[in-house]
Amino acid sequence: MNFASDNAGPMHPSVLNAIVDANTGYEMPYGNDSIMPRVRDKIRATFEAPEAAVYLVATGTAANALALSTYTNSWDTMFAHRVSHVEEDECGAPEFYANGARLTLVDGDGAKMDPSALRHAIVNTGDKGVHGVQRGPVSITQATEVGTLYSLEDIAALTAIAKEYGLKTHLDGARFANACAALGCTAAQMTWKAGIDVVSFGGTKNGCAGVEAVVFFDPEKAWEFELRRKRGAHLFSKHRFLSAQMDAYLTDDLWLKLGRQANANCARLVKGLETVKGAEIPDTPEANMVFAHLPRAAHRRAMDAGAKYYLFPADATLDGPDDDLIRCRMVCDWNKTEAEIDQLVDLLRG
Amino acid sequence: MNFASDNAGPMHPSVLNAIVDANTGYEMPYGNDSIMPRVRDKIRATFEAPEAAVYLVATGTAANALALSTYTNSWDTMFAHRVSHVEEDECGAPEFYANGARLTLVDGDGAKMDPSALRHAIVNTGDKGVHGVQRGPVSITQATEVGTLYSLEDIAALTAIAKEYGLKTHLDGARFANACAALGCTAAQMTWKAGIDVVSFGGTKNGCAGVEAVVFFDPEKAWEFELRRKRGAHLFSKHRFLSAQMDAYLTDDLWLKLGRQANANCARLVKGLETVKGAEIPDTPEANMVFAHLPRAAHRRAMDAGAKYYLFPADATLDGPDDDLIRCRMVCDWNKTEAEIDQLVDLLRG
Amino acid sequence: MNFASDNAGPMHPSVLNAIVDANTGYEMPYGNDSIMPRVRDKIRATFEAPEAAVYLVATGTAANALALSTYTNSWDTMFAHRVSHVEEDECGAPEFYANGARLTLVDGDGAKMDPSALRHAIVNTGDKGVHGVQRGPVSITQATEVGTLYSLEDIAALTAIAKEYGLKTHLDGARFANACAALGCTAAQMTWKAGIDVVSFGGTKNGCAGVEAVVFFDPEKAWEFELRRKRGAHLFSKHRFLSAQMDAYLTDDLWLKLGRQANANCARLVKGLETVKGAEIPDTPEANMVFAHLPRAAHRRAMDAGAKYYLFPADATLDGPDDDLIRCRMVCDWNKTEAEIDQLVDLLRG
Amino acid sequence: MNFASDNAGPMHPSVLNAIVDANTGYEMPYGNDSIMPRVRDKIRATFEAPEAAVYLVATGTAANALALSTYTNSWDTMFAHRVSHVEEDECGAPEFYANGARLTLVDGDGAKMDPSALRHAIVNTGDKGVHGVQRGPVSITQATEVGTLYSLEDIAALTAIAKEYGLKTHLDGARFANACAALGCTAAQMTWKAGIDVVSFGGTKNGCAGVEAVVFFDPEKAWEFELRRKRGAHLFSKHRFLSAQMDAYLTDDLWLKLGRQANANCARLVKGLETVKGAEIPDTPEANMVFAHLPRAAHRRAMDAGAKYYLFPADATLDGPDDDLIRCRMVCDWNKTEAEIDQLVDLLRG
Repeated sequence: MNFASDNAGPMHPSVLNAIVDANTGYEMPYGNDSIMPRVRDKIRATFEAPEAAVYLVATGTAANALALSTYTNSWDTMFAHRVSHVEEDECGAPEFYANGARLTLVDGDGAKMDPSALRHAIVNTGDKGVHGVQRGPVSITQATEVGTLYSLEDIAALTAIAKEYGLKTHLDGARFANACAALGCTAAQMTWKAGIDVVSFGGTKNGCAGVEAVVFFDPEKAWEFELRRKRGAHLFSKHRFLSAQMDAYLTDDLWLKLGRQANANCARLVKGLETVKGAEIPDTPEANMVFAHLPRAAHRRAMDAGAKYYLFPADATLDGPDDDLIRCRMVCDWNKTEAEIDQLVDLLRG
Repeated sequence: MNFASDNAGPMHPSVLNAIVDANTGYEMPYGNDSIMPRVRDKIRATFEAPEAAVYLVATGTAANALALSTYTNSWDTMFAHRVSHVEEDECGAPEFYANGARLTLVDGDGAKMDPSALRHAIVNTGDKGVHGVQRGPVSITQATEVGTLYSLEDIAALTAIAKEYGLKTHLDGARFANACAALGCTAAQMTWKAGIDVVSFGGTKNGCAGVEAVVFFDPEKAWEFELRRKRGAHLFSKHRFLSAQMDAYLTDDLWLKLGRQANANCARLVKGLETVKGAEIPDTPEANMVFAHLPRAAHRRAMDAGAKYYLFPADATLDGPDDDLIRCRMVCDWNKTEAEIDQLVDLLRG
Repeated sequence: MNFASDNAGPMHPSVLNAIVDANTGYEMPYGNDSIMPRVRDKIRATFEAPEAAVYLVATGTAANALALSTYTNSWDTMFAHRVSHVEEDECGAPEFYANGARLTLVDGDGAKMDPSALRHAIVNTGDKGVHGVQRGPVSITQATEVGTLYSLEDIAALTAIAKEYGLKTHLDGARFANACAALGCTAAQMTWKAGIDVVSFGGTKNGCAGVEAVVFFDPEKAWEFELRRKRGAHLFSKHRFLSAQMDAYLTDDLWLKLGRQANANCARLVKGLETVKGAEIPDTPEANMVFAHLPRAAHRRAMDAGAKYYLFPADATLDGPDDDLIRCRMVCDWNKTEAEIDQLVDLLRG
Repeated sequence: MNFASDNAGPMHPSVLNAIVDANTGYEMPYGNDSIMPRVRDKIRATFEAPEAAVYLVATGTAANALALSTYTNSWDTMFAHRVSHVEEDECGAPEFYANGARLTLVDGDGAKMDPSALRHAIVNTGDKGVHGVQRGPVSITQATEVGTLYSLEDIAALTAIAKEYGLKTHLDGARFANACAALGCTAAQMTWKAGIDVVSFGGTKNGCAGVEAVVFFDPEKAWEFELRRKRGAHLFSKHRFLSAQMDAYLTDDLWLKLGRQANANCARLVKGLETVKGAEIPDTPEANMVFAHLPRAAHRRAMDAGAKYYLFPADATLDGPDDDLIRCRMVCDWNKTEAEIDQLVDLLRG
């Protein structure tokens, strides 16, 4: 009963098999393996972007930091939501990779940037001449860090503002598949057709061991990205094992199927949580993650039985009055079984 | 017939199996998986260092850059051989991770730092007061980038000089196993017993898919390293797949056996190369790699038949007089067969 | 009628004379001039800090960025008010000098950090383990960027919170003299006696040409600061001309007298502004600067007559209805005459 | 008798007077003072470069680091002589400002880069693909750090090589005036007509208090430079005092006259040194600096009488056999008197 994160689960068997199959004989290193051209083609087909520059790295933070830094001067600021992975969970990797550039935090409900807040942040950045940091790229997280979704129109509205000021746009798609599955849209619709310039297309949280694709729809900065990746120590010598994962992940839309399954698992969980007496779920879960406020006694029952998930604040304790509501995060990956979900719900219900 | 690099070969079956076995159920992320404590114990046992701080990353460049930067102020310079991976093959990753610190290049035959050259470089660095960069750590590559070895005495002589000036020492052990096997010494003898403070203990080139351990014999900087690793985007969420590789690699001294095998493969190759008419081998190969000067015609025969290895300079061509000597690098991993080696030699011999 | 900034005025005659006097013969460079020991002594006496490490630089941004970075790891965040010079007016210099560290913005009325907001920001920073940036120093601006003042108790309250979490504290004293004069306190009371670890003691805005002292009350990081200053290209060869300015500035408490005069000039101005019909002055001016909302017609009259000061937003225009209130900033240095102030007020009053 | 450095002397009276004259009334800050347009015009006229972008900073290290970094990606290496200020005397400022870029050291007699050595260094840098650092700008020091000169043909030969590889070129002209005076050429001939892209035009060592102009012959990067200067904390608020110095320095070719005088002073000194028994002067002094090997007894006599100059190595001692040759550096600025020079020579001669 581990609902701590979608990075706690296993690889999908197809991905594992691809690694096993790739472990044969010799392959040229550093992205020159025989699998990578196939991966590139599949990404381009998936995104309907025949000119896209496609690169693989092994962590989501690397994908985000490298992608963003490619569009950021050291004297720029990057715009991101206050509740975003680049702000909260990367120990300053974007600033490190962008040589000391800044993050400007934008607010908005449900961890989604409000367009007027974004515009305000951009305008506010630009009125200091040489004295202030300059406007850099806008980073949008889809699905968000609290499990909500931008609609395609939401994304387009934000990128339109960015374009108005000549700014590049990045999509942090660590949970790209969950979002795409939930919206029922294509990868192209959720990215370049909505004005996105570069996407971190996540595999790790959705059935892979550790692989993310960085996709630039305009390949102009391709060589610079290669240098940044190498300099950041993120170019794998035995790259074939990244290629193999991504290859399987893209075959027959496995990524989308797994995203859909994870969402369905979460929907089942949410339905169950709603029946827990006293439960409150402020942001309607739209992907594979739910933040809920549940009575302490419910948490105690679940955790005593071995359930794993995060409570907030981090120092929340199970000791105390039964009825106090304690906030928690539960995440479903594709691999959850109905039985496991129902078991958790039953425990929480008491 | 791929002799391009020891990073061109497959995982050892035991390592692959460990990944397969690890792909079960849920594991806490970011190094909190159930395998990592075992890995830590095995590393500590292997290095006879019960207090050592042990971390895993996925690339050799990450291991080197993170290890070195932990001991380097941004105004320092790191001492390394002119022919070293940190100088030649990491696109400036050490400088990037050390926030703009410098590399001071030290000469010496066979890609081995000459002790007097090291001392001279250190002394020369320190006589400028605030105007010059300051003395930082010394990085030693073992086995070297040209396949030679420092003896234990050689290492001790260099670290003694470093200690004399209060400097930390790093061992780039991307080919640690090959060196240890060739010297017939223990991991402890080749590191802390010889004065090394931190080692990059390589797995990737020797039977793993992508894993290196960074081992600090003094754990004082452990937390700083964790922050640097995360900030560099090198902390894996599904860390269990790094742990699994390293676990198998350490079991029953697999690392040492594979290193020994790779060395034996190379020795067979060298013996064969010596019979190629006109061949010259300036540095006696001591580990798993040979640099040889061979007649163009020999290269042409081998490459026309599909052999893969690197020529130097990079733009060397197979068109031209048959007898011209062209420098090449051939590397053997554990996975080479005698037949494959002999086939290459036969082709070269013509 | 230039009220644009206190950096628009001339040197005080005593400061200029000191430069003239210093221009004799030869002096050793880089801070080894014969004046600097005297400066050091005077600063230590002024701050009642006989052990303090004292350094001169030529710009306020250099003083702030170098002082802060000395107490900041690259993975840390520095806490500062949303309306502070380090945030708004240094083009990211603190992040640059701190190798990519972050600024966390703290709110509070009158450009003063609210203690509970500071505590919240600190607490909120520390609950992410290795995933989040770590807690770095707290920077307090006194006088603030809107001309208000922290009381000694205000400063002590903020530094107490910082100390509770083991954090260092920095005082951005570009307008130190104005604050000290207004509070009627000693330099020691406003700094180390209130818990400050390092201060940027400004001279440039208060009668000097370009000199700021950085004063560390604990000299532990002195050598590191010297290296950072040199590496930042802020160590002057003809340092005597920095020393001479600061020497004059400290003689007979010139700094304090000039701060007092500037404050008095501003008080006279404020008194006049209050008589402008429709004027609103939200934050009570406590030092040498006033932010006022005045009718457009008033601005038009003043500016048409050659008055210089800043309107906000930066693109505010004098074309439009007479009665619209437009925000402006007016700053008085020590050199303003009563006649000049009265002339401006008369113009504004119409 | 201070021959330690040309940064140990005073301002020329005209420069000082300009500062005095500038200290009147109010001036807009940050380079918007009323003097700067005149300075810009004079620089453009002096360099016959009507489109040049012209900026002032206060230290030579700032000029070099900012100029170089404007043409350097963080993954590049800058080419400079092993005996250059950027390598030896800036505590890594170029690497800091270029966000961790590298310096590649080029050899050559008399502290002058040998063209074939430069070509070799450039070629050697480019053959590693993504694994190696990339080719960045070439920095040439004129006059060199040992007082020698590149001829115009020498400079053109180096810049031609740089251009062949598409690299930008920088002239470190901390002693620009001395070189220009010695060669009898124009400022244009020594820079853009010889293929230089950006020059650090030094004033500090030649009669100013602290001012250097950075001149970009192609203004394309002008705005970027302004941001870098501000971010580096090198934009002066009371910029008028930099402008004033440079204005006087450029008036009636004062810079050139002072350079000529300093050279003449040095020539007189050299002539004297040649008469010291046992003296050896390996590099023929061509500007305002001489490196000589003189008997210990000669040094002892001079220094006992109060003469100041540097001995090498830094820990050289006056205790020991009289006849041992000890290397020294003596520098003349424009302000040396014949009497002072002759006095030093007399002391050395004994």
